[in-house]
Amino acid sequence: MSYQPPVQDLMFCIEHLSHWDKVSAREQYSEFDLSDIGAVLEGYAQFCAEQIAPLSHVGDTLGAGFQKGRVTMPEGHSRAYAQFVEMGWQALTHPLEYGGTGLPRAVGAAAVEMLNAADMSFGLCPLLTDGAIEALLLTGSDEQKATYLEPLIAGRWSGTMNLTEPQAGSDLGRVATKALRRGDGSYGISGTKIFITYGAHDLTENIIHLVLARTPDAPAGPKGLSLFIVPQKLVEPDGTPGAGNSVNCLSIEHKLGVRASPTAVLEYDDATGFLIGNENCGLEYMFIMMNAARFSVGVQGIGISERAYQRALAYARDRIQSRPVNGRSRDAVPIIDHPDVRRILMRMRSLTEGGRAMAAATAGLLDIAHHGDDPEFGALAEFMVPLVKGFCSERAVEVASLGVQIHGGMGFIEETGAAQHYRDARILPIYEGTTAIQANDLLGRKLMRDGGATARLFAVRIAETEAKLASSDANARAIGTSLAQARGAFEAALDWMLDNGRRDIDAAFAGSVPFLMLAGTLAAGWKLAKGALAAQTALDAGQNTQFLTQKIATALFFTQHILPECTTEQTRIMNGSRSLLDAAFPE
Amino acid sequence: MSYQPPVQDLMFCIEHLSHWDKVSAREQYSEFDLSDIGAVLEGYAQFCAEQIAPLSHVGDTLGAGFQKGRVTMPEGHSRAYAQFVEMGWQALTHPLEYGGTGLPRAVGAAAVEMLNAADMSFGLCPLLTDGAIEALLLTGSDEQKATYLEPLIAGRWSGTMNLTEPQAGSDLGRVATKALRRGDGSYGISGTKIFITYGAHDLTENIIHLVLARTPDAPAGPKGLSLFIVPQKLVEPDGTPGAGNSVNCLSIEHKLGVRASPTAVLEYDDATGFLIGNENCGLEYMFIMMNAARFSVGVQGIGISERAYQRALAYARDRIQSRPVNGRSRDAVPIIDHPDVRRILMRMRSLTEGGRAMAAATAGLLDIAHHGDDPEFGALAEFMVPLVKGFCSERAVEVASLGVQIHGGMGFIEETGAAQHYRDARILPIYEGTTAIQANDLLGRKLMRDGGATARLFAVRIAETEAKLASSDANARAIGTSLAQARGAFEAALDWMLDNGRRDIDAAFAGSVPFLMLAGTLAAGWKLAKGALAAQTALDAGQNTQFLTQKIATALFFTQHILPECTTEQTRIMNGSRSLLDAAFPE
Repeated sequence: MSYQPPVQDLMFCIEHLSHWDKVSAREQYSEFDLSDIGAVLEGYAQFCAEQIAPLSHVGDTLGAGFQKGRVTMPEGHSRAYAQFVEMGWQALTHPLEYGGTGLPRAVGAAAVEMLNAADMSFGLCPLLTDGAIEALLLTGSDEQKATYLEPLIAGRWSGTMNLTEPQAGSDLGRVATKALRRGDGSYGISGTKIFITYGAHDLTENIIHLVLARTPDAPAGPKGLSLFIVPQKLVEPDGTPGAGNSVNCLSIEHKLGVRASPTAVLEYDDATGFLIGNENCGLEYMFIMMNAARFSVGVQGIGISERAYQRALAYARDRIQSRPVNGRSRDAVPIIDHPDVRRILMRMRSLTEGGRAMAAATAGLLDIAHHGDDPEFGALAEFMVPLVKGFCSERAVEVASLGVQIHGGMGFIEETGAAQHYRDARILPIYEGTTAIQANDLLGRKLMRDGGATARLFAVRIAETEAKLASSDANARAIGTSLAQARGAFEAALDWMLDNGRRDIDAAFAGSVPFLMLAGTLAAGWKLAKGALAAQTALDAGQNTQFLTQKIATALFFTQHILPECTTEQTRIMNGSRSLLDAAFPE
Repeated sequence: MSYQPPVQDLMFCIEHLSHWDKVSAREQYSEFDLSDIGAVLEGYAQFCAEQIAPLSHVGDTLGAGFQKGRVTMPEGHSRAYAQFVEMGWQALTHPLEYGGTGLPRAVGAAAVEMLNAADMSFGLCPLLTDGAIEALLLTGSDEQKATYLEPLIAGRWSGTMNLTEPQAGSDLGRVATKALRRGDGSYGISGTKIFITYGAHDLTENIIHLVLARTPDAPAGPKGLSLFIVPQKLVEPDGTPGAGNSVNCLSIEHKLGVRASPTAVLEYDDATGFLIGNENCGLEYMFIMMNAARFSVGVQGIGISERAYQRALAYARDRIQSRPVNGRSRDAVPIIDHPDVRRILMRMRSLTEGGRAMAAATAGLLDIAHHGDDPEFGALAEFMVPLVKGFCSERAVEVASLGVQIHGGMGFIEETGAAQHYRDARILPIYEGTTAIQANDLLGRKLMRDGGATARLFAVRIAETEAKLASSDANARAIGTSLAQARGAFEAALDWMLDNGRRDIDAAFAGSVPFLMLAGTLAAGWKLAKGALAAQTALDAGQNTQFLTQKIATALFFTQHILPECTTEQTRIMNGSRSLLDAAFPE
């Protein structure tokens, strides 16, 4: 099934939901107008649809291989990656001074969605490179920036994040990899890192590993971690890759999904590393970078959801089975005419578009926050990132599963393709911090720390949208009613959290994931509601497209079918902590 | 990870939830007391844990093979199947007169759960054989029973169900396989059947295919289907398998899960078939048999859920990561000590035990209904079957997915085993009728047809349990409060369904799956609540085991965390039909 990038909706989200007025007012973006951005995304869409999407099934079938210490990429990946570099796509959102295109983050999010919808295994390589670029931009020395940024932004080199070790997953304080200071200012890095995405491959001239490690005299725990650049090939004075560093790929994992993305076990044996920033600040730097990576994983979820939806929609139009329940035809009809098939498709579509809407909004907030213009935007951006990661990744698993269901028995057959999305999606709520870790971040850093101020601001902004909906037409009022109920559930749960977070921290954390899902679902519904208002405005102005009427239909469906889940989450949080914490697990 | 069959809970469900007083009062079961049954289940448990569970991972890794027109089973399956036959396990619930053991259905359900928890791929072969036995018992001629039942019940032969064709999945009216009458009373069967579970294999001496086909003069659509016995090897007068029939396996499918279970494409080329019952009644016979098969698929879901839960629980106890949020330890703790991990584990456990409780109750109803003693039990049994299939299969997908989540990154690695459950479980809401088909059955046959009488009886029975809970202790009262709310949601949705089912059938069917899930969730919560009352009675009588206190804890968790979903489903049903039906899918 071919992939049709949803450029119209991506542009709609950028225009109406990404705070485009504020973003585009920035000096650095002044040369781009929406039509330029539309042209860029159309070009990117064509590349994704034509060059990358066809790789997805073959890559899944063959998988990345590992022979004699070397990773082999499935057929077609090298050629496609070379085209990706040639087109300069890695550069999209990065600064002009290092060869980047300098586009806003919301455009970058649209690109990440399309690339990962086309092939999530392929998309992971540039995603990790983006993370490394981000880290170097924020914390690298001028010399490090000069050495590494240009080839990374060009896509000639790729980047990795090396956090996990067998005993240190969510708990990075347990990282044991050692970093010994050498006389020349470099460090000797030794240890084993696991789950390193694109830790070894032959797509690029060099691989730049960013590695968390511990100097001999560092404090125990997370405050004793430092971050190092460990190039796979050491860089010559002229900037080209030279001698190999002592980093070896021991094996790659046999995974449920994203099978064309090599997940490496890397052994560092006194490998040469270069400290980034200051010693013992590694985790702090990682967190800066992780925010961007977490956001991108949420966007991957939107991509997988969109792809699963398109595949299911095509099948539902094509597959003829059974007469309509209302008896209007004596013949069997395409299954899309059956109410429950429509229900599943609308659920898939509204979850996907809801995620896209909140991601576009968050990308705008991140852009504005990044430049420090507005502390309110900064706080909201920070608040939204775990919501995007949590909602879009968990919902991607749900949407991909629904996509299998639409196909009936065919969905269980690997050749159909629906099952691949179900397998690929499953990593999303796990990597870059599990959903529980996102929820801890939301509760600990984004909610308790400021006493709920940002969370209340979030609710105030939603109430403002409700006010606009209340003075519009019947659909908008119906959307507003459901939105207000969900916001009410959020505020009640928030009060309870703030209260219990002080008195009974276990009870608060027993509701952390329900709270994250409540807030994420509310955020998606809110942004869809804003989109519906924008669509109605355009319709009122005489534009009359099915696209616009369906933006309203999707928002209405979401608010009536998905938003009611917020009340259930509220009940779990406020009424369910004792039954959870008092239960025991007998041996 | 080894599998520990939950015999204690299975026996608890049989004793307290399977209407044991009524079932055991039957003449045919008078020789079995609970301790006999406990001994049988302990023996079966040992077989499943020791002989079958170790096959699961290797079977998944190797898969069933297909070479030169023959299916090859993965290593160990032949030997294990031979032991299964030797132990006589296929005979468990079948009539004494054909060599069966004659145990009640609730015992059979416990056995099906354990076998499928041990290895669902293996469990499918006996499950299909059970279906064929059931069909022959109910609709076969005396001669057919004499020929086929003894070797099937002994497990020396296996059975299959041949319904699906490429154009006929959910819509069996489109079946095109032909059956031409021959002079000798047999029929020549020609056509292609797909998705035939264990359609070809070498575990048994013979395979008895039950095939839906159409005689030349039959009416079009579902009312022109007849059911045929097509033995893979024709049976000699002495009852032994003789010459091969003209049934060929063209290929087997490459599937997402249950990979050791061969799913065959079978070509019938003027194969010799024998009519079961009357011509054109095939679908009716299939439906009788399908009820049993659907129930069993629900039970498979409980098995997968239990296995996924056990694996996740073991990992959560073993894996040490991060300090507790409440600061009670400065050291990292097993992750089972983190509130969100407990939340996920309790969700898995309560969904699993909820499914088991409702399955045991339904098995009891089916037994009593089967003997026609009590029309009320018959109607309730019919009502419960789609609930068991719908709830337990959909929840198995959820539970298996949560099991992956507990494992973090390790869950995505195939060697860990959690991913296999996630893959295996995905077929459950699809085969033997998708969840939408179950919901149509519930709405059309079990609800509209009797004007909601059985559904109201179901609610009355729940209210009776609430009354008992209300006069018990604080936990019971809390369970009762949540149960009453969920029952209220059910009754409101029921009224709406009955009203709209007459006026606006599309709107009713737009809510069919939400209604099925509402009713299924309510049924599971109800049976857990009944179990909690029984546990409290036992505790009051001086038995004091952690098992009993945890039965109450599980019920309380379910009612506070899962039952609130009923209200969301009610909202979707009653408030969501227009937004669903009015949405369009632009080309």
